[in-house]
Amino acid sequence: MEGNLKDWDRIIIGVDPGTNVMGYALLGIKGKQPKVIAMGVIELNKFESHYKRLRRIYERILGLVEQYLPDEMAIEAPFFGKNVQSMLKLGRAQGVAMAAALSREVPITEYEPRKIKMAITGNGAASKEQVKEMLRRILNIPEENLLPQLDATDALGAALCHFYESSKPATTRGASSWKSFIASHPDRVKK
Amino acid sequence: MEGNLKDWDRIIIGVDPGTNVMGYALLGIKGKQPKVIAMGVIELNKFESHYKRLRRIYERILGLVEQYLPDEMAIEAPFFGKNVQSMLKLGRAQGVAMAAALSREVPITEYEPRKIKMAITGNGAASKEQVKEMLRRILNIPEENLLPQLDATDALGAALCHFYESSKPATTRGASSWKSFIASHPDRVKK
Repeated sequence: MEGNLKDWDRIIIGVDPGTNVMGYALLGIKGKQPKVIAMGVIELNKFESHYKRLRRIYERILGLVEQYLPDEMAIEAPFFGKNVQSMLKLGRAQGVAMAAALSREVPITEYEPRKIKMAITGNGAASKEQVKEMLRRILNIPEENLLPQLDATDALGAALCHFYESSKPATTRGASSWKSFIASHPDRVKK
Repeated sequence: MEGNLKDWDRIIIGVDPGTNVMGYALLGIKGKQPKVIAMGVIELNKFESHYKRLRRIYERILGLVEQYLPDEMAIEAPFFGKNVQSMLKLGRAQGVAMAAALSREVPITEYEPRKIKMAITGNGAASKEQVKEMLRRILNIPEENLLPQLDATDALGAALCHFYESSKPATTRGASSWKSFIASHPDRVKK
């Protein structure tokens, strides 16, 4: 799928950091059209040591950044978790992935899972399957390409969400819908 | 204090990651004698953006790793915190500091604050001032050098704790004292 990197106006790397599996996706934008360049998962289960996992994340994300030269990173970042222990581990996984981007001056934007689901399906409480199905349709991904990559769809969702968010006119950014935008900016509604 | 890096048998970098201030210390070992090579703090308060703070941590720790070529990293790592939000932030700060070490193949060992206090003062509940005073005595640091660097003493404590731990005979590692070692290995006591 890769083609020539120069063909893209802009490339976004989406990352879904986890301590067992990390998903990633490279989304290329040409004109206003987003297209999947590559997606996959970094398996961490095989490494027993916490440090080996972190090192693997760092090396693989850095490898992707150097291979595809993305312009931005979008990261799926839950802000709430079960307990402090799991959040510390998640924070470390996010931290090493971010360091790989920061080391190559790639700016990072993070999105809550709910925000990503809302951007892709219009429903912040959508199931993983609904998100996957919408991504498949929007990006014209053949079913067989997506099936083995289920864990990567969250990363792809983050990248596509970032594309949508950054394509919005500046005035509507931050507003969750036209309705709420209009409600908070009554002066901008043509009477 | 630096001198020639080749004069040292081994160099340990100690890090105390925080989201407002990060402390660091370079401990040089010659024979069985530890000595401070450098110590200081990375001020993060001036950066408003979370990413700028993380990038600063990454760049400064990487800079120290490249300047002093430490053999190991010792990191002060609390395992419990007030809430999941602060633990996520702390995890990220730890993660980027670790990534800087991992990118240069520097192995990392983490120590709980209690363990560090115990190793330095013999009391796991010692105050910051007690730890500082013991570090000053053990390492012959002139008072005026230590005073402005209070935040760096935790990092120095981590480095010295790692030196003590790694200097123990392998058989006693993991045991908190000879008493507990004997208790858990009755077969190894000469009757």
